[in-house]
Formats: sequence, C-alpha cells, structure tokens
Amino acid sequence: MSHTLRQKEKLLARVRRIRGQMEGIERALEGGSACGEVLRQLASARGAMAGLSAELMADHLQEHVVDAATEAERRAGGQELLEVIRTYMK
Amino acid sequence: MSHTLRQKEKLLARVRRIRGQMEGIERALEGGSACGEVLRQLASARGAMAGLSAELMADHLQEHVVDAATEAERRAGGQELLEVIRTYMK
Amino acid sequence: MSHTLRQKEKLLARVRRIRGQMEGIERALEGGSACGEVLRQLASARGAMAGLSAELMADHLQEHVVDAATEAERRAGGQELLEVIRTYMK
Amino acid sequence: MSHTLRQKEKLLARVRRIRGQMEGIERALEGGSACGEVLRQLASARGAMAGLSAELMADHLQEHVVDAATEAERRAGGQELLEVIRTYMK
Repeated sequence: MSHTLRQKEKLLARVRRIRGQMEGIERALEGGSACGEVLRQLASARGAMAGLSAELMADHLQEHVVDAATEAERRAGGQELLEVIRTYMK
Repeated sequence: MSHTLRQKEKLLARVRRIRGQMEGIERALEGGSACGEVLRQLASARGAMAGLSAELMADHLQEHVVDAATEAERRAGGQELLEVIRTYMK
Repeated sequence: MSHTLRQKEKLLARVRRIRGQMEGIERALEGGSACGEVLRQLASARGAMAGLSAELMADHLQEHVVDAATEAERRAGGQELLEVIRTYMK
Repeated sequence: MSHTLRQKEKLLARVRRIRGQMEGIERALEGGSACGEVLRQLASARGAMAGLSAELMADHLQEHVVDAATEAERRAGGQELLEVIRTYMK
C-alpha cells in the first residue's frame, strides 16, 4: 500500500488545513481586512505548504525509489522526484 | 482605498485558484492517485503562492510604507512587512 | 551612518563565513569528497545566506524606507527593496 | 566515476563563481557601498546557489539512488538526500 494511502487521513487533514487557510484569506479579502493581516495569513499557509511538501517528497523518495519493488517503479518514482526538485528548487 | 480593496477581485481570483488547487490535491488523495501526481500538484500550488506573496508584499511596501499618508501608518506598515520578511526568509 | 556601515564588522563576518563555506565546498569537490557531503555543505551555506538576506532586507526596510530622512531617500530605498522582493520571492 | 568527479570542472566553476560573488559583497561592504547594491548582489548569489543545489540534488538522486550499483549504496544515497530535503524544504 502506497504511503499516500497508508497516511491518507493524516495527509488529508494537512491539505484541508491549508485549504481552510486559503478560505480564511478569501474571507479576509472579501471583508476588507487590513493588508498586513492577509500577508500574515499567506505567510502561515506558505509555511504549512513547505512542511507538507518536504514530508511528501521524503516519503516518496523512501517508498517509490529507495524501497521500490521493481526497477521500473524505481525509475518512474525517481523521474517524478527529479521533476519536482527541478520545479521547487530553481 | 487600499490596494487589497482596489485589486480585490484580481487577488480573490488568485486565492480561489490556489484554494481550487488544494481541493484538487484533496480529491487526488481521496481517490488514491499516484503520489507523483500529488507532488506535482503541490509544487504547482506552491509556485502560485510564491507569486501571490511576492506581489502582495511589493504592493504593501509601496502603498503602506513608501506612500503612507501618515508617519503612524508608515510605522505600522513597516512593522507588518518586517514580520513577514522574517517569517518568509529564514 | 547607514546600517551596513554601522554593522560593518558583523555583516563582514557573516559574509566571510559564507565565503569560507564556499571554499570548503571547493576543497570537497577538488578532493573528490562524497557527493552527499557536498550537498550537506551547500545546504548549510544556503541556510546562512537566507538568514543574512532576511536580516539585510529588514534593516534596509527600517533604515532606508521607514526611517528615511527625505522623501527621495524613501522612494529610492523602497524601489531597491521592491526589486529584491520580486527577485527573491518569485 | 561519481557525477561530482565526472562534472568536477563544471561544478567547481559554479562554486567559484558564487565564491567570487561573496568576495564582491565583501568588497562592497568594505567600500561602504549603498545597502541596496549589497542586497542586489546577495539576491543574485542566492539565485546561483539555488540553481546549483537543485542540479546537485537531481544528479545525486539519479546516480546514487536510482542507478546505485548496490542496495547499500542506494540506502546511503537515499538517506543523504532525505537529510537535504528536510533541511532545504522546511
């Protein structure tokens, strides 16, 4: 069973929390909140996303590359991670 | 009128797009999508957030610090930006 | 006196430390060190640079924008920071 | 032959360029250059470092994990990358 399935509820909770933060930013903009408050909420959501990304990348590396069951799975998992590293890190 | 009010619809559209991306990630996890797909969607949402953050910070600097109407507004606007710089950049 | 002059020795020490880290990476590559070691040293130098950048941006904002002596200095200081925010944060 | 050995000259050139940028920042501080100029040079050095980090991580993933010659090398290479992902991405 893939880590995203095994940890599904935990990952879903984190994704929903970030979605909730974005909904909070939406309400702040709609309600005309001070710009500083919108900036703070966005910085917080960004931090949550950075943490979630790091964790998913680490689990993906472990499960779909290091512990891959077949050579084909390893190549595919490695390729997916390469794309994300090149997207994230530039 | 503050820039977040003046550009309200444009900013709301960008925030909603990121929220939509998080909802997409939620569906991908619920539907048991491949982990690589979840990673890709997260990297894309993160990029959108980085762009939105940079734009909001720049507009905040211009409007609430450089062009502040009063010394008090400048100090408050400057303080808000200092907090975000220290949160983002560490 | 500008903050970069007032804190010159402290800033120089931090810049020299990062330069020293880059020299260490150079030696590691020249000496054929394991790639993992080069990666670790680079991650560490990057962290040091992120901290230095955040501090310089915060001091610049405070001194050359919020506390600027003249309107012209404020506009120039604000413009410099806008360019860095757009470079860093995208 | 490891990728850091195979691409040694290319990697050394990039590391030396970043070192040179840090030396330039040192001279700017010593010479009392305007703070905005120091910020710009730091942002540029940071960009160069981000690019170098992404490339090294990608090459490390490919060579020491996906294409590792032995299970032991794969585990060690994977562990090194996990540490860097957790350092970089938080």
